[in-house]
Amino acid sequence: MAARQPQTATEQSPEPTGQVDLGLLGNLLGYRLRRAQLAAFQDFIIAMKDYDLRPAQFSVLAIIAANPGLKQSRVSEALGINRANFVALLDELEQRKLARRAAAPGDRRSNALYLTPKGESFLKDAYQHLLQTHEKRIETALGNTDKRNLQDLLDRLAAL
Amino acid sequence: MAARQPQTATEQSPEPTGQVDLGLLGNLLGYRLRRAQLAAFQDFIIAMKDYDLRPAQFSVLAIIAANPGLKQSRVSEALGINRANFVALLDELEQRKLARRAAAPGDRRSNALYLTPKGESFLKDAYQHLLQTHEKRIETALGNTDKRNLQDLLDRLAAL
Repeated sequence: MAARQPQTATEQSPEPTGQVDLGLLGNLLGYRLRRAQLAAFQDFIIAMKDYDLRPAQFSVLAIIAANPGLKQSRVSEALGINRANFVALLDELEQRKLARRAAAPGDRRSNALYLTPKGESFLKDAYQHLLQTHEKRIETALGNTDKRNLQDLLDRLAAL
Repeated sequence: MAARQPQTATEQSPEPTGQVDLGLLGNLLGYRLRRAQLAAFQDFIIAMKDYDLRPAQFSVLAIIAANPGLKQSRVSEALGINRANFVALLDELEQRKLARRAAAPGDRRSNALYLTPKGESFLKDAYQHLLQTHEKRIETALGNTDKRNLQDLLDRLAAL
Protein backbone atom coordinates (compact mmCIF):
# COMPACT_ATOMS: atom_id res chain seq x y z
CA MET A 1 0.00 0.00 0.00
CA ALA A 2 2.83 2.43 0.87
CA ALA A 3 4.15 2.60 -2.70
CA ARG A 4 0.72 3.13 -4.14
CA GLN A 5 -0.19 6.40 -5.83
CA PRO A 6 -3.41 7.73 -4.37
CA GLN A 7 -5.85 8.41 -7.21
CA THR A 8 -8.85 9.80 -5.40
CA ALA A 9 -9.86 10.84 -1.92
CA THR A 10 -11.44 7.43 -1.45
CA GLU A 11 -8.29 5.59 -2.45
CA GLN A 12 -6.19 7.52 0.05
CA SER A 13 -7.96 5.72 2.85
CA PRO A 14 -5.34 3.33 4.26
CA GLU A 15 -7.81 0.68 5.35
CA PRO A 16 -10.98 -0.73 3.76
CA THR A 17 -13.16 0.96 6.34
CA GLY A 18 -16.40 0.64 4.42
CA GLN A 19 -16.58 4.47 4.13
CA VAL A 20 -17.56 4.30 0.51
CA ASP A 21 -19.67 6.89 -1.30
CA LEU A 22 -23.08 5.30 -1.94
CA GLY A 23 -23.79 7.59 -4.88
CA LEU A 24 -27.23 7.07 -6.45
CA LEU A 25 -27.82 4.08 -4.20
CA GLY A 26 -28.29 6.35 -1.20
CA ASN A 27 -31.45 7.77 -2.81
CA LEU A 28 -33.24 4.45 -3.14
CA LEU A 29 -35.43 3.37 -0.24
CA GLY A 30 -35.00 -0.29 -1.21
CA TYR A 31 -31.31 -0.07 -0.40
CA ARG A 32 -32.01 1.29 3.12
CA LEU A 33 -34.59 -1.45 3.60
CA ARG A 34 -32.08 -4.11 2.64
CA ARG A 35 -29.37 -2.77 4.96
CA ALA A 36 -31.80 -2.58 7.89
CA GLN A 37 -33.09 -6.09 7.16
CA LEU A 38 -29.56 -7.52 7.01
CA ALA A 39 -28.69 -5.82 10.32
CA ALA A 40 -31.83 -7.21 11.96
CA PHE A 41 -31.15 -10.73 10.65
CA GLN A 42 -27.54 -10.54 11.83
CA ASP A 43 -28.76 -9.53 15.26
CA PHE A 44 -31.29 -12.40 15.20
CA ILE A 45 -28.54 -14.90 14.36
CA ILE A 46 -26.38 -13.66 17.23
CA ALA A 47 -29.34 -13.90 19.64
CA MET A 48 -30.08 -17.47 18.46
CA LYS A 49 -26.49 -18.71 18.56
CA ASP A 50 -27.09 -21.21 21.37
CA TYR A 51 -30.25 -22.40 19.62
CA ASP A 52 -28.49 -22.76 16.25
CA LEU A 53 -31.53 -21.24 14.58
CA ARG A 54 -31.60 -19.00 11.52
CA PRO A 55 -34.49 -16.63 10.72
CA ALA A 56 -35.90 -18.86 7.96
CA GLN A 57 -35.89 -21.90 10.29
CA PHE A 58 -37.66 -19.92 13.00
CA SER A 59 -40.26 -18.76 10.45
CA VAL A 60 -41.03 -22.30 9.37
CA LEU A 61 -41.40 -23.55 12.95
CA ALA A 62 -43.66 -20.61 13.84
CA ILE A 63 -45.92 -21.12 10.81
CA ILE A 64 -46.24 -24.86 11.47
CA ALA A 65 -46.99 -24.21 15.15
CA ALA A 66 -49.77 -21.78 14.25
CA ASN A 67 -51.17 -23.98 11.45
CA PRO A 68 -50.60 -27.64 12.39
CA GLY A 69 -51.21 -29.99 9.47
CA LEU A 70 -50.79 -27.30 6.84
CA LYS A 71 -49.48 -28.63 3.55
CA GLN A 72 -45.80 -28.25 2.80
CA SER A 73 -46.46 -26.28 -0.38
CA ARG A 74 -48.60 -23.75 1.48
CA VAL A 75 -46.00 -23.19 4.19
CA SER A 76 -43.25 -22.53 1.65
CA GLU A 77 -45.58 -20.31 -0.34
CA ALA A 78 -46.65 -18.29 2.71
CA LEU A 79 -42.99 -17.60 3.48
CA GLY A 80 -41.88 -17.06 -0.11
CA ILE A 81 -39.22 -19.79 0.15
CA ASN A 82 -38.55 -21.71 -3.06
CA ARG A 83 -39.20 -25.43 -3.18
CA ALA A 84 -35.59 -26.68 -3.22
CA ASN A 85 -34.52 -24.49 -0.31
CA PHE A 86 -37.64 -25.39 1.62
CA VAL A 87 -37.07 -29.13 1.27
CA ALA A 88 -33.50 -28.79 2.57
CA LEU A 89 -34.67 -26.59 5.43
CA LEU A 90 -37.38 -29.06 6.42
CA ASP A 91 -34.99 -32.02 6.18
CA GLU A 92 -32.81 -30.32 8.76
CA LEU A 93 -35.72 -29.58 11.09
CA GLU A 94 -36.79 -33.22 10.81
CA GLN A 95 -33.28 -34.49 11.54
CA ARG A 96 -33.25 -32.32 14.65
CA LYS A 97 -36.62 -33.87 15.58
CA LEU A 98 -38.30 -30.46 15.74
CA ALA A 99 -40.80 -30.98 12.91
CA ARG A 100 -42.28 -33.93 11.04
CA ARG A 101 -43.94 -34.58 7.71
CA ALA A 102 -47.07 -36.73 7.52
CA ALA A 103 -49.25 -37.80 4.61
CA ALA A 104 -51.76 -35.07 3.78
CA PRO A 105 -55.27 -36.55 3.86
CA GLY A 106 -56.71 -36.83 0.37
CA ASP A 107 -53.56 -35.57 -1.37
CA ARG A 108 -50.78 -38.09 -1.89
CA ARG A 109 -48.53 -35.61 -3.65
CA SER A 110 -48.21 -33.35 -0.64
CA ASN A 111 -47.11 -33.60 2.99
CA ALA A 112 -48.81 -32.09 6.00
CA LEU A 113 -46.42 -30.55 8.52
CA TYR A 114 -46.45 -30.76 12.32
CA LEU A 115 -44.12 -29.83 15.15
CA THR A 116 -42.96 -32.59 17.47
CA PRO A 117 -43.47 -32.03 21.22
CA LYS A 118 -39.75 -31.24 21.33
CA GLY A 119 -40.26 -28.73 18.50
CA GLU A 120 -43.14 -27.06 20.36
CA SER A 121 -41.11 -26.46 23.49
CA PHE A 122 -37.97 -25.52 21.54
CA LEU A 123 -39.92 -22.86 19.62
CA LYS A 124 -41.45 -21.48 22.82
CA ASP A 125 -38.02 -21.19 24.49
CA ALA A 126 -36.39 -19.69 21.41
CA TYR A 127 -39.17 -17.12 21.07
CA GLN A 128 -38.91 -16.06 24.73
CA HIS A 129 -35.18 -15.68 24.33
CA LEU A 130 -35.63 -13.63 21.14
CA LEU A 131 -38.03 -11.26 22.94
CA GLN A 132 -35.53 -10.74 25.75
CA THR A 133 -32.54 -10.13 23.48
CA HIS A 134 -33.07 -9.41 19.77
CA GLU A 135 -36.50 -7.82 19.96
CA LYS A 136 -35.54 -5.83 23.07
CA ARG A 137 -32.48 -4.44 21.27
CA ILE A 138 -34.74 -3.28 18.44
CA GLU A 139 -37.15 -1.65 20.89
CA THR A 140 -34.28 0.07 22.65
CA ALA A 141 -32.90 1.36 19.34
CA LEU A 142 -36.26 2.72 18.18
CA GLY A 143 -38.46 3.26 21.21
CA ASN A 144 -41.93 1.76 21.45
CA THR A 145 -43.79 4.44 19.50
CA ASP A 146 -41.33 4.46 16.62
CA LYS A 147 -41.31 0.67 16.54
CA ARG A 148 -45.09 0.70 16.03
CA ASN A 149 -44.74 3.43 13.39
CA LEU A 150 -42.14 1.36 11.60
CA GLN A 151 -44.37 -1.73 11.65
CA ASP A 152 -47.17 0.25 10.00
CA LEU A 153 -44.89 1.72 7.35
CA LEU A 154 -43.41 -1.69 6.56
CA ASP A 155 -46.83 -3.26 6.22
CA ARG A 156 -47.80 -0.54 3.75
CA LEU A 157 -44.68 -1.29 1.72
CA ALA A 158 -45.26 -5.04 1.85
CA ALA A 159 -48.59 -4.40 0.10
CA LEU A 160 -46.87 -2.57 -2.81
CA MET B 1 -59.32 -31.76 -4.21
CA ALA B 2 -63.08 -32.43 -4.39
CA ALA B 3 -62.84 -35.80 -2.60
CA ARG B 4 -60.71 -34.40 0.16
CA GLN B 5 -61.97 -34.28 3.71
CA PRO B 6 -61.52 -30.80 5.15
CA GLN B 7 -59.65 -31.12 8.46
CA THR B 8 -59.39 -27.54 9.65
CA ALA B 9 -60.63 -24.11 8.70
CA THR B 10 -57.33 -23.51 6.95
CA GLU B 11 -57.54 -26.70 4.92
CA GLN B 12 -61.07 -25.93 3.74
CA SER B 13 -59.68 -23.15 1.61
CA PRO B 14 -59.91 -24.46 -1.98
CA GLU B 15 -56.87 -22.53 -3.15
CA PRO B 16 -53.52 -21.78 -1.54
CA THR B 17 -54.38 -18.15 -0.98
CA GLY B 18 -51.52 -17.41 1.38
CA GLN B 19 -54.01 -16.65 4.17
CA VAL B 20 -51.95 -18.46 6.76
CA ASP B 21 -51.80 -17.61 10.48
CA LEU B 22 -48.38 -16.07 11.12
CA GLY B 23 -48.44 -17.02 14.80
CA LEU B 24 -45.39 -15.82 16.75
CA LEU B 25 -43.79 -14.60 13.54
CA GLY B 26 -46.22 -11.68 13.36
CA ASN B 27 -44.69 -10.25 16.55
CA LEU B 28 -41.14 -10.01 15.21
CA LEU B 29 -40.15 -6.80 13.48
CA GLY B 30 -37.49 -8.63 11.46
CA TYR B 31 -40.21 -10.57 9.68
CA ARG B 32 -42.05 -7.39 8.67
CA LEU B 33 -38.76 -5.91 7.48
CA ARG B 34 -38.08 -8.95 5.34
CA ARG B 35 -41.55 -8.93 3.75
CA ALA B 36 -41.30 -5.21 2.96
CA GLN B 37 -37.80 -5.65 1.55
CA LEU B 38 -38.90 -8.55 -0.67
CA ALA B 39 -41.88 -6.51 -1.93
CA ALA B 40 -39.62 -3.55 -2.71
CA PHE B 41 -37.09 -5.75 -4.54
CA GLN B 42 -39.88 -7.42 -6.50
CA ASP B 43 -41.14 -4.00 -7.53
CA PHE B 44 -37.59 -2.97 -8.49
CA ILE B 45 -37.20 -6.06 -10.68
CA ILE B 46 -40.48 -5.31 -12.46
CA ALA B 47 -39.44 -1.69 -13.02
CA MET B 48 -36.05 -2.82 -14.43
CA LYS B 49 -37.42 -5.55 -16.69
CA ASP B 50 -36.40 -3.84 -19.93
CA TYR B 51 -32.97 -3.09 -18.45
CA ASP B 52 -32.51 -6.69 -17.25
CA LEU B 53 -31.09 -5.34 -13.99
CA ARG B 54 -31.42 -6.83 -10.51
CA PRO B 55 -31.00 -4.79 -7.31
CA ALA B 56 -27.52 -6.21 -6.57
CA GLN B 57 -26.34 -5.37 -10.10
CA PHE B 58 -27.65 -1.82 -9.80
CA SER B 59 -25.89 -1.45 -6.43
CA VAL B 60 -22.55 -2.49 -7.87
CA LEU B 61 -22.85 -0.11 -10.83
CA ALA B 62 -23.85 2.77 -8.53
CA ILE B 63 -20.96 2.17 -6.11
CA ILE B 64 -18.41 1.95 -8.95
CA ALA B 65 -19.82 5.11 -10.56
CA ALA B 66 -19.46 7.04 -7.29
CA ASN B 67 -16.01 5.60 -6.51
CA PRO B 68 -14.19 4.99 -9.80
CA GLY B 69 -11.07 2.87 -9.36
CA LEU B 70 -12.18 1.44 -6.01
CA LYS B 71 -10.78 -2.00 -5.34
CA GLN B 72 -12.99 -5.00 -6.00
CA SER B 73 -12.74 -6.20 -2.40
CA ARG B 74 -13.92 -2.86 -1.04
CA VAL B 75 -16.92 -2.72 -3.37
CA SER B 76 -18.06 -6.20 -2.33
CA GLU B 77 -17.41 -5.37 1.32
CA ALA B 78 -19.35 -2.10 1.17
CA LEU B 79 -22.35 -3.97 -0.23
CA GLY B 80 -22.03 -7.06 1.98
CA ILE B 81 -21.87 -9.37 -1.05
CA ASN B 82 -19.69 -12.46 -0.59
CA ARG B 83 -16.66 -12.98 -2.80
CA ALA B 84 -17.97 -15.82 -4.97
CA ASN B 85 -21.27 -14.07 -5.71
CA PHE B 86 -19.49 -10.81 -6.37
CA VAL B 87 -17.10 -12.33 -8.91
CA ALA B 88 -20.03 -13.87 -10.83
CA LEU B 89 -21.93 -10.60 -10.71
CA LEU B 90 -18.96 -8.64 -11.99
CA ASP B 91 -18.26 -11.16 -14.75
CA GLU B 92 -21.76 -10.56 -16.03
CA LEU B 93 -21.40 -6.76 -15.90
CA GLU B 94 -18.11 -7.07 -17.80
CA GLN B 95 -19.66 -9.33 -20.42
CA ARG B 96 -22.37 -6.74 -20.93
CA LYS B 97 -19.61 -4.12 -21.30
CA LEU B 98 -21.01 -2.03 -18.46
CA ALA B 99 -18.04 -2.31 -16.10
CA ARG B 100 -14.38 -3.24 -16.37
CA ARG B 101 -11.62 -4.49 -14.10
CA ALA B 102 -8.15 -2.93 -14.28
CA ALA B 103 -4.96 -3.64 -12.35
CA ALA B 104 -5.01 -1.76 -9.04
CA PRO B 105 -1.89 0.40 -8.83
CA GLY B 106 0.53 -0.99 -6.23
CA ASP B 107 -1.56 -4.08 -5.46
CA ARG B 108 -1.29 -6.99 -7.88
CA ARG B 109 -3.72 -9.16 -5.96
CA SER B 110 -6.64 -6.82 -6.42
CA ASN B 111 -8.57 -5.22 -9.26
CA ALA B 112 -9.72 -1.64 -9.49
CA LEU B 113 -13.23 -1.25 -10.91
CA TYR B 114 -14.53 1.27 -13.43
CA LEU B 115 -17.69 1.79 -15.46
CA THR B 116 -17.37 1.89 -19.22
CA PRO B 117 -18.89 4.91 -21.01
CA LYS B 118 -21.74 2.56 -21.95
CA GLY B 119 -22.08 1.62 -18.27
CA GLU B 120 -22.21 5.29 -17.21
CA SER B 121 -25.05 6.11 -19.55
CA PHE B 122 -26.86 2.82 -18.86
CA LEU B 123 -26.78 3.53 -15.11
CA LYS B 124 -28.03 7.09 -15.61
CA ASP B 125 -30.95 5.88 -17.75
CA ALA B 126 -31.81 3.03 -15.41
CA TYR B 127 -31.77 5.36 -12.40
CA GLN B 128 -34.06 7.90 -14.07
CA HIS B 129 -36.46 5.12 -14.98
CA LEU B 130 -36.37 3.78 -11.40
CA LEU B 131 -37.24 7.22 -10.02
CA GLN B 132 -40.20 7.51 -12.38
CA THR B 133 -41.58 4.03 -11.68
CA HIS B 134 -40.32 2.08 -8.66
CA GLU B 135 -39.41 4.98 -6.38
CA LYS B 136 -42.57 6.89 -7.35
CA ARG B 137 -44.71 3.87 -6.44
CA ILE B 138 -43.06 3.80 -3.01
CA GLU B 139 -43.65 7.53 -2.54
CA THR B 140 -47.28 7.13 -3.56
CA ALA B 141 -47.75 4.24 -1.13
CA LEU B 142 -46.20 6.12 1.79
CA GLY B 143 -46.40 9.84 1.09
CA ASN B 144 -43.32 12.05 1.25
CA THR B 145 -43.30 12.65 4.99
CA ASP B 146 -43.72 9.00 5.88
CA LYS B 147 -41.07 8.03 3.36
CA ARG B 148 -38.60 10.32 5.12
CA ASN B 149 -39.69 8.94 8.51
CA LEU B 150 -39.16 5.42 7.23
CA GLN B 151 -35.67 6.27 5.96
CA ASP B 152 -34.71 7.58 9.41
CA LEU B 153 -36.12 4.55 11.19
CA LEU B 154 -34.34 2.16 8.82
CA ASP B 155 -31.03 3.95 9.28
CA ARG B 156 -31.39 3.60 13.04
CA LEU B 157 -32.00 -0.13 12.62
CA ALA B 158 -29.08 -0.54 10.22
CA ALA B 159 -26.83 0.75 13.01
CA LEU B 160 -28.05 -1.98 15.44
